[in-house]
Amino acid sequence: MEAVNLAAKFSQISEHWQPRIVAQINDLHIKLAKVEGEFVWHSHADTDEFFLVNRGELTIEMRDGSVTLGHGEMFVVPRGVEHRPVAATECEIVMIEPVGTLNTGDAGGERTVADPERL
Amino acid sequence: MEAVNLAAKFSQISEHWQPRIVAQINDLHIKLAKVEGEFVWHSHADTDEFFLVNRGELTIEMRDGSVTLGHGEMFVVPRGVEHRPVAATECEIVMIEPVGTLNTGDAGGERTVADPERL
Repeated sequence: MEAVNLAAKFSQISEHWQPRIVAQINDLHIKLAKVEGEFVWHSHADTDEFFLVNRGELTIEMRDGSVTLGHGEMFVVPRGVEHRPVAATECEIVMIEPVGTLNTGDAGGERTVADPERL
Repeated sequence: MEAVNLAAKFSQISEHWQPRIVAQINDLHIKLAKVEGEFVWHSHADTDEFFLVNRGELTIEMRDGSVTLGHGEMFVVPRGVEHRPVAATECEIVMIEPVGTLNTGDAGGERTVADPERL
């Protein structure tokens, strides 16, 4: 019976591109991450992916366009759509996606976080 | 391919306790509402319910305790748990719940919004 305070949780994160689980609704995890720089191009065949920016600015590049999110802006990447998150400077993001969804989707590779820590 | 700006969407809402749909991830709707005063006690037998406060302060009363959320704080009411949202002054909240979830859950009544508007 405890609130999740976003600012307090983000203050516990120092690494970039390391998602942390802070809550669960049904079969979805609410995850937080600090990001900076370019991530890898990837897609999720079986799920949409929700992004909300808490601080900073995130650009979600897609093959046919991009969307840039500032504080208090959200976007849902539809399932199957290739995307690459990019942040010129450090950015705090909230993500919602099914339990077990990999951050690198179908791309795999060394930046995959198979078992995100719970904060 | 458009961001959802929370502040802009909330500025379009004037009534209290009237959820609006702003996005969808898989089978869940992201809904916004302005609330003030006491809502009805209710529960959702088949789904958890996610709350995030954007502005103001929301107390979620439950039968065995309560949680108060300020800006940037979230809470998930587990399925089946009776709860009553209360806000002493106007409060902006983001909710996530499956498509078709009624705001009044099992309680029904005149405050039910059967078919929330899309913003």
